[in-house]
Amino acid sequence: MTPDETARAAGAAMYAGDLASQRLGIEITEIGPGRATAAMRVTETMTNGHKVAHGGYVFLLADTAFAFACNSYGANTLAAGAEISFVEPARLGDELIAVAVERVRYGRSGLYDVTVRRSPGGPVVAEFRGRSRTVAGSLLEPQTDNGASP
Amino acid sequence: MTPDETARAAGAAMYAGDLASQRLGIEITEIGPGRATAAMRVTETMTNGHKVAHGGYVFLLADTAFAFACNSYGANTLAAGAEISFVEPARLGDELIAVAVERVRYGRSGLYDVTVRRSPGGPVVAEFRGRSRTVAGSLLEPQTDNGASP
Amino acid sequence: MTPDETARAAGAAMYAGDLASQRLGIEITEIGPGRATAAMRVTETMTNGHKVAHGGYVFLLADTAFAFACNSYGANTLAAGAEISFVEPARLGDELIAVAVERVRYGRSGLYDVTVRRSPGGPVVAEFRGRSRTVAGSLLEPQTDNGASP
Amino acid sequence: MTPDETARAAGAAMYAGDLASQRLGIEITEIGPGRATAAMRVTETMTNGHKVAHGGYVFLLADTAFAFACNSYGANTLAAGAEISFVEPARLGDELIAVAVERVRYGRSGLYDVTVRRSPGGPVVAEFRGRSRTVAGSLLEPQTDNGASP
Repeated sequence: MTPDETARAAGAAMYAGDLASQRLGIEITEIGPGRATAAMRVTETMTNGHKVAHGGYVFLLADTAFAFACNSYGANTLAAGAEISFVEPARLGDELIAVAVERVRYGRSGLYDVTVRRSPGGPVVAEFRGRSRTVAGSLLEPQTDNGASP
Repeated sequence: MTPDETARAAGAAMYAGDLASQRLGIEITEIGPGRATAAMRVTETMTNGHKVAHGGYVFLLADTAFAFACNSYGANTLAAGAEISFVEPARLGDELIAVAVERVRYGRSGLYDVTVRRSPGGPVVAEFRGRSRTVAGSLLEPQTDNGASP
Repeated sequence: MTPDETARAAGAAMYAGDLASQRLGIEITEIGPGRATAAMRVTETMTNGHKVAHGGYVFLLADTAFAFACNSYGANTLAAGAEISFVEPARLGDELIAVAVERVRYGRSGLYDVTVRRSPGGPVVAEFRGRSRTVAGSLLEPQTDNGASP
Repeated sequence: MTPDETARAAGAAMYAGDLASQRLGIEITEIGPGRATAAMRVTETMTNGHKVAHGGYVFLLADTAFAFACNSYGANTLAAGAEISFVEPARLGDELIAVAVERVRYGRSGLYDVTVRRSPGGPVVAEFRGRSRTVAGSLLEPQTDNGASP
């Protein structure tokens, strides 16, 4: 498989099991080696008063884009942690777009930057930096162990 | 009002408008000046394969505890950002408990530490540190402006 | 003044008072609106055993590039905080290069990404993200107040 | 050796090689399992104008306390990264005190919180959270390999 094919196959395998992302209507609109784009519409059940999205859902979208990006090489990779800065609120009805790009990989670690915008090319809602850790196993083979020791 | 009464009144005002937390079954089990505890059970729609909770929901719970803690003085306070480290996975059926405590306040800024555990006294799932910023307005008075410029 | 001239004037004003950077031999090799590059050679007094640079000096260099970048518009701007990931050790004799670029500005806040490399184009030593806060006053006028309330 | 003896022996071994800390006059005033206290006086060469300490030196002191705390079990442990919030400036002549305490260890990872104060019991200058990673080797035996692959 080419790196792009690997990324798409890994993404498909992840999405199939990711009930959380499916139920929130998150779509992976683009994926490639070390990068992924995720989109989600802010619904009423995501708001916390004043028609503003709960910051947790903004994080969740960014974290999803990050997860697909850091698993795009096919090796099982976990989120070790992340930092987020909330730039401006997302609002009911916004079509949020999270673009994840790899900054650096070293050993089994990686750093990924994710920018969440209110719409494609729209104003920035949040900036996120995720830290990944690759563990044993592959997304592209039958798995017998999904241990998640960091 | 005493500080404890202010915290409870601010928490009640927040919770009433927080559809996101209500729909996820999050409960604020304790609140006081500069602190709050939030609880949430991991349901199937929060999992992302392998019966492991999507990290975004772990963050969301921690962020909720943080929001209630930093608003407990009654002044409108926003999440400016946060850092999270994922310690071990949360699983389907876990009753997660997030305890937020204030570390320091300075000017209009504050730092709050949140520990998420798998159950009360159980193993740590995540460590979170939130950065808050107090803006104009009060949770305890009629509001005409909920501008969120950070 | 053009934005580039403002950046150079602000940088010169900062450097003149920055005894710490001068004594460490840090040079600002490039500055423009929202960006700056700083260089520093790792000397023996910066090492903490095994000829490896103390991580604090790697941070200090990144923080310096960040400070010059976020002050490049001429308005007094403070470091509110930062996150650093250490990618690989810097060693005695390395000519470290820290390149700071602005990611986003919003209200009086800003985010700046700094990559520290072992040499220009060399391997990454650290990735840094700084959070800035603009306060009253200008670097380009006589100052009577350098209050630093965050 | 008891845990306290191990911590003291590990600290002594680290300090002996830590030219950077020695030259800055940093003293390790207390060390135990998972904790350490470091002290440093702000000298003129640490200032960056207006008699305010360069934030890099505040970080360096916190990072030093963190390093001694996470190595206090005797196993070679590296700083993987850190987050710092600057609360208020440190000034020329301040006797800064950094107290590092372990928050959680899991697998080969750890999180340590460091508070830097202007003097013992004085106002907070910065809050720091360090992420550690234990690698092969011991501080208490002859070392043949100090590889630092994260």
